[in-house]
Amino acid sequence: MNTPALADSVRMAGDAVEILDRRVYPFEVRWVRCATSEEVATAIEQMVTQSSGPLFATTAGMTLAAREGRHEPPGRAAARLRAAGERLIATRPTNNHIRDAVHAILAATADGPLAEAAGEELAEAVAEAAAGHDAAYWARSAALGGHAASLLPDGARVLTHCWADAYLIATVRAAQEAGRRLSFVCTETRPYLQGARLTAATLVEMGYTPTLITDGMVAAALADGIADVTLTAADRVTLDGHVINKVGTLGVALAASAFGVPYYALVQAPDPLAPTAADVVIEHRDGDEVLHVLGTRTAAPGVTGYYPAFDTTPPRLVTAIVTENGVYQPGQVKESLL
Amino acid sequence: MNTPALADSVRMAGDAVEILDRRVYPFEVRWVRCATSEEVATAIEQMVTQSSGPLFATTAGMTLAAREGRHEPPGRAAARLRAAGERLIATRPTNNHIRDAVHAILAATADGPLAEAAGEELAEAVAEAAAGHDAAYWARSAALGGHAASLLPDGARVLTHCWADAYLIATVRAAQEAGRRLSFVCTETRPYLQGARLTAATLVEMGYTPTLITDGMVAAALADGIADVTLTAADRVTLDGHVINKVGTLGVALAASAFGVPYYALVQAPDPLAPTAADVVIEHRDGDEVLHVLGTRTAAPGVTGYYPAFDTTPPRLVTAIVTENGVYQPGQVKESLL
Repeated sequence: MNTPALADSVRMAGDAVEILDRRVYPFEVRWVRCATSEEVATAIEQMVTQSSGPLFATTAGMTLAAREGRHEPPGRAAARLRAAGERLIATRPTNNHIRDAVHAILAATADGPLAEAAGEELAEAVAEAAAGHDAAYWARSAALGGHAASLLPDGARVLTHCWADAYLIATVRAAQEAGRRLSFVCTETRPYLQGARLTAATLVEMGYTPTLITDGMVAAALADGIADVTLTAADRVTLDGHVINKVGTLGVALAASAFGVPYYALVQAPDPLAPTAADVVIEHRDGDEVLHVLGTRTAAPGVTGYYPAFDTTPPRLVTAIVTENGVYQPGQVKESLL
Repeated sequence: MNTPALADSVRMAGDAVEILDRRVYPFEVRWVRCATSEEVATAIEQMVTQSSGPLFATTAGMTLAAREGRHEPPGRAAARLRAAGERLIATRPTNNHIRDAVHAILAATADGPLAEAAGEELAEAVAEAAAGHDAAYWARSAALGGHAASLLPDGARVLTHCWADAYLIATVRAAQEAGRRLSFVCTETRPYLQGARLTAATLVEMGYTPTLITDGMVAAALADGIADVTLTAADRVTLDGHVINKVGTLGVALAASAFGVPYYALVQAPDPLAPTAADVVIEHRDGDEVLHVLGTRTAAPGVTGYYPAFDTTPPRLVTAIVTENGVYQPGQVKESLL
């Protein structure tokens, strides 16, 4: 089974981390080299990578930070690692991947058994914890993908918004292993065009010919019966079943509900630290990004852009939430943590 | 009061018609010269102009066609005019402006009192009928604008999709004359970016600083309370209150309904020839347009575009329809014809 390019888009390269630049893929295959954890943080802020990418960038960034302190004495190396983790967490607030990756690595090392370790030992342990976190993410995504694929009958036409990354890849793989044919409709997902570029390219790499629509066409397409199922990742799911995901997801869910199409949200697990939507910070990005497409100005002079990067879909619009542990009604999703 | 550029975007220039190219405005102010009514029809098909533009292009195209037959005998000149009208009507099926303009001009000339006139006399009469139709369109739009402005309280924040053209200009003028302050949120309206370019530019020309969002942000923006009112033109309104307008309107109306924001549709009159939505042909355009932005490829290789140019909003999602005769509940809109 072929591996799509975006399934391996963060890599260690000598003393640096290289991150595939998702702002230009697939038109350019450009890797951004980050020599320090600070450069990794900046790359995440600047959207060099997104979706699951920041998780892998974070574990790699923590590995770099630990290496940076490998000649430091106990205490100082651990403090450096904690500071790097705080910096990485501060990059983007809405998805909990970064926070969870930092906490997992710290709990296994500087905030756990290696609090008194010297830099060299800490660096080795962090590299190991980072690799373990990455591997666990793929394994959990694969479990999620199996559950999600069980919701897709043979021949299902799937409309997806933005780029569900590892969850989509795992779902497609599970459906393929089960011999189920699927077809896909992708929204282009302005302003970064993740759907037109990342989802579309990956599905092509996996053997499909996706149909592309603009973000404004979702309701018309669902009213016209173009899809049997709508499905997105979730950047965060609260314990009471709110789905926070790329802006536009709420419109997909509203249209799906209005026209009797199921809407499924994919997330490895709800966030135990977010009882409800008020506990999630919605990132607002620079409105200037709305005024451009791939760097070219598309808006008239004199306007201001507004860019909430995520939106919140209430449980009533969510048919089910698929986690690593199974398929849940949104009101019962916290049972996935038990 | 200043006249926005798009309020005067079709003009006779000697023996030709010049049409402001809305595909590139405001980045370029380019006029497409059409020497024949056939060239006018092609320009309409190719989206050189849209919204109200095809109406003015049609009356100008009919004027050209009549001139083309000015040396022809009775009968042949009239037949030429009818053929030109059919060609213009065939350009785009969803909005009824073109059909109505052709029928009005023919009824006043070749299909009416001038059925037996020679080419020269017919050409003069067509030019007069065309000018009268244009003037009536502005007058009816102004009446509509007065009714629409009455729905917008001082300080109202208005979210609009695509480009409502003469109706929006008339509404804004009426609100300005009444001393009411407004502010605007525009959707960019992919794939042609009418909102980001035409609506935004015109509102800037009229003294505002509109806020731009992507088409996928409408639901999030309304959930966040960014607007008090949503308002679009309608390309067609059926006698039972269905609103056919630029694709994306249905999503706006769904979100407005979900979050308690009124949705108003503006149309001079419902279409007496369209009892319900099944009587309206929804134009599907070349899907390739979805794969590009302003001529630059934005989608991954290997995908297919899908481009329904309009969608249909059912009466239950429409707060009111504003016509030249007043404000109507969608179920009562046919009373506007009485």
